[in-house]
Amino acid sequence: MSDLTRKDDKHLMFFAGRSHPVLAGEIARILGCDIVPTRFETYANSEIYVRFEQSVRGCDAFVFQAHTAPVNDWLIEQLIMVDALRRASAKRVTVVCPFYPYARQDKKHAGREPISARLVADLFSTAGADRIISIDLHASQIQGFFSGPVDHLYALPILSDYVETHYDLDNLVIVSPDAGRVKTADMWSDRLGCPIAIIHKRRDPDIANTVAVHEVVGQVENKTCLLVDDMIDTGGTICLAAEALKLKGAGRIIAAATHPVLSKKAVGRLQDSPFDEVIVTNTLPIRKEAMIDKLKVLSIAPMLAEAIEAVFKEESVAELLSEKHKWATRLIEA
Amino acid sequence: MSDLTRKDDKHLMFFAGRSHPVLAGEIARILGCDIVPTRFETYANSEIYVRFEQSVRGCDAFVFQAHTAPVNDWLIEQLIMVDALRRASAKRVTVVCPFYPYARQDKKHAGREPISARLVADLFSTAGADRIISIDLHASQIQGFFSGPVDHLYALPILSDYVETHYDLDNLVIVSPDAGRVKTADMWSDRLGCPIAIIHKRRDPDIANTVAVHEVVGQVENKTCLLVDDMIDTGGTICLAAEALKLKGAGRIIAAATHPVLSKKAVGRLQDSPFDEVIVTNTLPIRKEAMIDKLKVLSIAPMLAEAIEAVFKEESVAELLSEKHKWATRLIEA
Amino acid sequence: MSDLTRKDDKHLMFFAGRSHPVLAGEIARILGCDIVPTRFETYANSEIYVRFEQSVRGCDAFVFQAHTAPVNDWLIEQLIMVDALRRASAKRVTVVCPFYPYARQDKKHAGREPISARLVADLFSTAGADRIISIDLHASQIQGFFSGPVDHLYALPILSDYVETHYDLDNLVIVSPDAGRVKTADMWSDRLGCPIAIIHKRRDPDIANTVAVHEVVGQVENKTCLLVDDMIDTGGTICLAAEALKLKGAGRIIAAATHPVLSKKAVGRLQDSPFDEVIVTNTLPIRKEAMIDKLKVLSIAPMLAEAIEAVFKEESVAELLSEKHKWATRLIEA
Amino acid sequence: MSDLTRKDDKHLMFFAGRSHPVLAGEIARILGCDIVPTRFETYANSEIYVRFEQSVRGCDAFVFQAHTAPVNDWLIEQLIMVDALRRASAKRVTVVCPFYPYARQDKKHAGREPISARLVADLFSTAGADRIISIDLHASQIQGFFSGPVDHLYALPILSDYVETHYDLDNLVIVSPDAGRVKTADMWSDRLGCPIAIIHKRRDPDIANTVAVHEVVGQVENKTCLLVDDMIDTGGTICLAAEALKLKGAGRIIAAATHPVLSKKAVGRLQDSPFDEVIVTNTLPIRKEAMIDKLKVLSIAPMLAEAIEAVFKEESVAELLSEKHKWATRLIEA
Amino acid sequence: MSDLTRKDDKHLMFFAGRSHPVLAGEIARILGCDIVPTRFETYANSEIYVRFEQSVRGCDAFVFQAHTAPVNDWLIEQLIMVDALRRASAKRVTVVCPFYPYARQDKKHAGREPISARLVADLFSTAGADRIISIDLHASQIQGFFSGPVDHLYALPILSDYVETHYDLDNLVIVSPDAGRVKTADMWSDRLGCPIAIIHKRRDPDIANTVAVHEVVGQVENKTCLLVDDMIDTGGTICLAAEALKLKGAGRIIAAATHPVLSKKAVGRLQDSPFDEVIVTNTLPIRKEAMIDKLKVLSIAPMLAEAIEAVFKEESVAELLSEKHKWATRLIEA
Amino acid sequence: MSDLTRKDDKHLMFFAGRSHPVLAGEIARILGCDIVPTRFETYANSEIYVRFEQSVRGCDAFVFQAHTAPVNDWLIEQLIMVDALRRASAKRVTVVCPFYPYARQDKKHAGREPISARLVADLFSTAGADRIISIDLHASQIQGFFSGPVDHLYALPILSDYVETHYDLDNLVIVSPDAGRVKTADMWSDRLGCPIAIIHKRRDPDIANTVAVHEVVGQVENKTCLLVDDMIDTGGTICLAAEALKLKGAGRIIAAATHPVLSKKAVGRLQDSPFDEVIVTNTLPIRKEAMIDKLKVLSIAPMLAEAIEAVFKEESVAELLSEKHKWATRLIEA
Repeated sequence: MSDLTRKDDKHLMFFAGRSHPVLAGEIARILGCDIVPTRFETYANSEIYVRFEQSVRGCDAFVFQAHTAPVNDWLIEQLIMVDALRRASAKRVTVVCPFYPYARQDKKHAGREPISARLVADLFSTAGADRIISIDLHASQIQGFFSGPVDHLYALPILSDYVETHYDLDNLVIVSPDAGRVKTADMWSDRLGCPIAIIHKRRDPDIANTVAVHEVVGQVENKTCLLVDDMIDTGGTICLAAEALKLKGAGRIIAAATHPVLSKKAVGRLQDSPFDEVIVTNTLPIRKEAMIDKLKVLSIAPMLAEAIEAVFKEESVAELLSEKHKWATRLIEA
Repeated sequence: MSDLTRKDDKHLMFFAGRSHPVLAGEIARILGCDIVPTRFETYANSEIYVRFEQSVRGCDAFVFQAHTAPVNDWLIEQLIMVDALRRASAKRVTVVCPFYPYARQDKKHAGREPISARLVADLFSTAGADRIISIDLHASQIQGFFSGPVDHLYALPILSDYVETHYDLDNLVIVSPDAGRVKTADMWSDRLGCPIAIIHKRRDPDIANTVAVHEVVGQVENKTCLLVDDMIDTGGTICLAAEALKLKGAGRIIAAATHPVLSKKAVGRLQDSPFDEVIVTNTLPIRKEAMIDKLKVLSIAPMLAEAIEAVFKEESVAELLSEKHKWATRLIEA
Repeated sequence: MSDLTRKDDKHLMFFAGRSHPVLAGEIARILGCDIVPTRFETYANSEIYVRFEQSVRGCDAFVFQAHTAPVNDWLIEQLIMVDALRRASAKRVTVVCPFYPYARQDKKHAGREPISARLVADLFSTAGADRIISIDLHASQIQGFFSGPVDHLYALPILSDYVETHYDLDNLVIVSPDAGRVKTADMWSDRLGCPIAIIHKRRDPDIANTVAVHEVVGQVENKTCLLVDDMIDTGGTICLAAEALKLKGAGRIIAAATHPVLSKKAVGRLQDSPFDEVIVTNTLPIRKEAMIDKLKVLSIAPMLAEAIEAVFKEESVAELLSEKHKWATRLIEA
Repeated sequence: MSDLTRKDDKHLMFFAGRSHPVLAGEIARILGCDIVPTRFETYANSEIYVRFEQSVRGCDAFVFQAHTAPVNDWLIEQLIMVDALRRASAKRVTVVCPFYPYARQDKKHAGREPISARLVADLFSTAGADRIISIDLHASQIQGFFSGPVDHLYALPILSDYVETHYDLDNLVIVSPDAGRVKTADMWSDRLGCPIAIIHKRRDPDIANTVAVHEVVGQVENKTCLLVDDMIDTGGTICLAAEALKLKGAGRIIAAATHPVLSKKAVGRLQDSPFDEVIVTNTLPIRKEAMIDKLKVLSIAPMLAEAIEAVFKEESVAELLSEKHKWATRLIEA
Repeated sequence: MSDLTRKDDKHLMFFAGRSHPVLAGEIARILGCDIVPTRFETYANSEIYVRFEQSVRGCDAFVFQAHTAPVNDWLIEQLIMVDALRRASAKRVTVVCPFYPYARQDKKHAGREPISARLVADLFSTAGADRIISIDLHASQIQGFFSGPVDHLYALPILSDYVETHYDLDNLVIVSPDAGRVKTADMWSDRLGCPIAIIHKRRDPDIANTVAVHEVVGQVENKTCLLVDDMIDTGGTICLAAEALKLKGAGRIIAAATHPVLSKKAVGRLQDSPFDEVIVTNTLPIRKEAMIDKLKVLSIAPMLAEAIEAVFKEESVAELLSEKHKWATRLIEA
Repeated sequence: MSDLTRKDDKHLMFFAGRSHPVLAGEIARILGCDIVPTRFETYANSEIYVRFEQSVRGCDAFVFQAHTAPVNDWLIEQLIMVDALRRASAKRVTVVCPFYPYARQDKKHAGREPISARLVADLFSTAGADRIISIDLHASQIQGFFSGPVDHLYALPILSDYVETHYDLDNLVIVSPDAGRVKTADMWSDRLGCPIAIIHKRRDPDIANTVAVHEVVGQVENKTCLLVDDMIDTGGTICLAAEALKLKGAGRIIAAATHPVLSKKAVGRLQDSPFDEVIVTNTLPIRKEAMIDKLKVLSIAPMLAEAIEAVFKEESVAELLSEKHKWATRLIEA
């Protein structure tokens, strides 16, 4: 009679911050569970308060947040949620951040800079996160900033599926908008079997040295050119790249990117650009006015939901990302 | 010849986030140093970037931030500054946050709540802060949330000096606006030698149980009543307390509080309230429109500057706070 | 054939230090398990040795200790037990300390003081404790001193149940013995629907400034006055409060407190005081000679046992503490 | 519908570095599982690369390595395996190192020395190891160098079983080769019920003080002398001890030791020594040329496999090591 | 003008718990400094309170405590002192514990035991200790239990100096009281150039197996026998050893040990034993009634003071312990 | 008289592992100090032992190691040195590893891989390293793997200085050997003002998909082509790139790389390649037989020595790396 016994079943609970309720709702629907009812307050002085309205003891918690502007509010909100989960005896806490915040501050370019992407990993860890699920990290090394497991997903299968369905691959060229993204272009090239071109910025030897010329390397004339990147933020780089392609006689020009940051002037730039179509996912919410006709948004929810389920069930995520796996593709209406 | 030697002098460097440049400037002036030139950017997607424009190697760094709204931005900005300092080989980093962010979330009132004040201490520590200087923490226990040293200052000497100069202490009563602040009132009473009154909220037995009656305990009739608190946020509590005092026949009614949070409706409330004067410090910046006539703002800069200097020189801060010490009092013009 | 599988059932094991065998035994009885047989030695030089006489591998361990005098011995004994459990592969270790040791050293009142309540949390954590169960912490902020989950119980339901049964609530007034305990009095008032009074110490203006007058705020004449506190240590404060109530014409005077520290002169003071009855729980053992007639001791064992079971079964502890829950009340015979 | 549930079964996975494939294979066979298929590379510049070819999510991982020369390669390889397991979401990682590396550097004999045995424990912990299984640690205190659980096994039952079967215990004397190993000899004496002798090195008073005399304490004449030690490295100590026994008229001389380090000249020394038989286990691989006739090698695989299974099933390892337990003894052919 | 500079001088401050004021005072005198004035309280419920009465900012703190009974009180008191120092901005904290508490619990002899000596190291570290100074650790491996630097001193030079002065070395034999202390005897032998003898406990083959026979190995007849050990606790082992020596015809019998634990019956045993003289140091306080004539107590204060000064001045402690160094020897009067 | 004071001067001590004595010696000479005399042993079973033969208390330690093959030995040796330094009270420990070990394992390319470059950072940190100095990290993100400061140097100024002196910049083209090194080429282009070309591997559409074609992007005909990379390991990539350039009609072909790993077949490949000259530094030792005529080796010692001195003196390292700074360039004789 010296001890009491019980079965130790695991149960998944899905939590969502306030940044992207539509995507959170879709993930929950696919998982077949509710978002755990949560009381959120932003106090008069802008401090955030969070309380879960159900017992979370012993659960396997997944805490979703989309790090769109105001990114610091969403980051702190998520840290507070994680803190509350740990103190309320959640068994394991997985941070789900499709767009990793501060990912572009992943190294010191000069002395006396922060490495904010590492800082973010440490903040998650300090609050009590055991693991991270993210999509298309700006640099893969960010996985190494976190001590625990990171499930790093790629939107490529979902984006390329759309391209494959809507475009003639025989006439398609994958274009890297600058030297830093050639590896992304390589992955597209491997998947679709199309050739590659690279846009290389260089100084104009004839003029003062701040002026850059966009050189196009590879065959693009009369081709359908697909510019690929991990995100579209201000849209500056990719739109200049499109102009350069147009000058070189490219046929249709399209773009594909995972994260629609779409800051400030991005929408106007894309609108005025030579792009026929710009394909993104909904890892970040898109403002109503940004839903212009040429923007096609594919839902990332099926991928996130399957990854969450695999992590929960302790099944291979690597396998999910293999070429054999078929994903549901769903175009989001404006 | 087996080693090289040099003197290991300490040098203080003073850093400031973007939340409260006026106070930062005044502190620097009193210290007799510059604010270290720092490049700040808020990118299009709201991420913050920081870089120091001078070598900070081996310095004794003090990083000032005022945690006003938007508090999460200022908190993350300060964490990023601390991260950059640590990576740039600052010898010691002291976080100077006169108003400790999230101080009111210092315990769980109910299950499944965070303890955000502890989380904030852990975030500072994770980023690389060695110590904290703060003023009038909402609860003194917050000192215990941080592993390293916390220098906890009290604005009382500065606020009470003003009261002493402008009011007749013989006719003054210190009033605690609710049961939670009686200890603050006690400290005022000890310093000024004046009696105390307490306002106690209780349910009205005659009406439905959500209605509260403000009972005034102690002699206030025809007295000058000084309501004391650590902060004025929405102003709700303190203005209702003033009304209650007025009903009880109080003479002049004034208030003193360290932190002018002054959220949303606070200014209107104070304007419409029976207060003759509301005395605060400038631990937080005050919006232009909030600088109403009855608000008197005393500079906290001399206290912060002396504390920073004492920490730097490894002199006693406890002594600074003793009654013997004389502070410069400076009224800030609107 | 690449791996072996087995069910991962949880089993609870209950461990107890030597400080309070009666309470430990009662908890075990309610849980329906044995206290794990443990060999304890106090060596000639006062060092403590502990060894468990059963395998504890993979168990969910609850380690009970009552932090009565000699508190340092019981604290070290419990730390040693936790260390032995971790090294013997217990899966999870919960420290059960109904009376949190050093809880009153929860902040620095002056420079160069320790914050021993935080230190204790760190010592538990260092030894290998994953979580804490405690009752009526002296300050709720102590929860934030520990990084892991803290289940903070309140003896109020058990104490108030006794009061409700034995006293006429219509004539009852809840009295706070000083300003620091008004919140406790509020909780009683909410539960029993009785009015409140406050005792406020102030300096006597006529005499030298170390002399304090106990002012009674609120209606107490001819009322049954219930003084409430979290603990009775030397009994000084509460007995002076009772005297003050008597002077103001109070009817019967009783007291209720969770923790019967009852140091040194407490028993004599209570004996000589105007109290009719002093109601406590048995979170701490009570010396035989302290079991005077007017002391009523209610067992805390049912509450601790139910909390342990809920934590083990991962059921809500918050719900246990809700008003709906009915507790067994058992009066302990001298 | 608010959460998803599943059974949380445990499954054991067994991993092995490249140091001792024969022993790894035998352990796996006894456990009844495969060694998890793993890709190992040693790159041209000697860096090691590891990848597991099966999903390891949620497994209870046991990572075997034998720390033979080149010990630093095998140590780093094992650390890399542990890192990969943690990042691939193994639930628990147990390092199985029968011969703990750097065990002899367990204290500072002089200033400015490392304590490498502690460093090794910290490296395991940093890489992500939760627990350690080891055999006959050079000093038992090494268990205390690791924060988590250490299962410390003793080869004595297996070695002594062989001796019992092959020798007449009535004529046997256990001999400690120096003062530092008397405790080992005591354990043998307790198990076999034979008397003890000790060899004590002392300076020869007649000659210069670096010359040592091997004094034999105890009755050895015409006895079968069993020299016992935890390891045979260069064989120097134990062979000199055998010579001393021979001079004192010992009958047959044999040796038993757990770890066959057998560095450099050891084989020649043993060959030329008065030993009839040298009994070891295979905690470390033995080079072909070292498999001389007088060396008897007993497999440690049954003990390791049973310990792994007990740890996995959360059954008592202490019981395994009790005298009641019967072990399979298997002599390994050259 | 961008920074302020000052010299960063170090200053030593010496703190002492309440366990051994005489030794603390003597150390301070030799160092030429005061013990920092400290307010100590033991509250009615046995909790300890500490406050330093001088600013300790930036100091190099040495915190002395002698871990005599009640050892848990002195340990917690020292931890609280360290906590207070860290929070009060001491620059570095060195724990000075001549007799390391719980040193004999340095390994697991059986399953489910603690390793309390490691736990103690972790507790010191958690409280904020940067380094440890100790004398004659029961096992040298304990140095490896602490992550930071440990200065491990040996009382041998002081004890042996007394022996050398008072005894004829030509007739002296160093005797180890059991197999575990042969290394200590070796160090004495190396220092004094005397031969060694060992006492070995073995079971009597003729009688039931709990009866032990003390066998004496080596020449002791008519010799002055010096039994050496690290401590005398209950005195059991060493007194039985003395009896065995007497039976073997030893001449004068004396003992030398560093730590005079002298628990319970030790004094009576020593009094009744064949010892002529028992030489110890004062690492622990000795009760008045234990100061029997045959007990000679040498002050350890000069060694501790010189070690503290060397650590403070960053001079070699290894050199202090070399044979060249001459120590002041001072006999303490009863 | 309550404390003792002394000046806290810093002194630099320079330590070196056994991997690259020539470079270590040169650094020490430039610094004007000795390498601290250190006893190294590699025991018969390949374990490493280290002891410093001078007091290191309070020193600012710089621990140099070149991570050439056998890299695991040199890594463990350096970790052991760091452990010994921390335990011997060095004040600060800087790991100097010009070629960061395991830098190419900086991310997971596939599931169940380690991130060994992060592991290495954690191992350094665990052993006690406070900071790192390294040169041309394979990926800049590795800085973020370490929590403390990393001084990241670039050999570009030294390599480019040689190129500038020996080649006509008007006819020079900087060539990136693959897409991953375009950023390195950009830095060269910025420094020397020369145009860029890129070699891009793509699948040959006409043949099976494992065959790669090396496409040359940019003008190389009759130009002096400078292939740039961070290291030359097996030489495979860069030699194939040289062949591709030759096919495109390049004039002279040269290469520049910081780290001469030069594994196995590298020397033969370089010998047989179209390279006129291959310029490297001596961050790693070069075997005698690898010192072929076309290999030019520039000493990195001046850069390392100046960086060490700047870190010691707390002067800006960023400034060292600015274009204004002039470096001593010294060609190393075969």
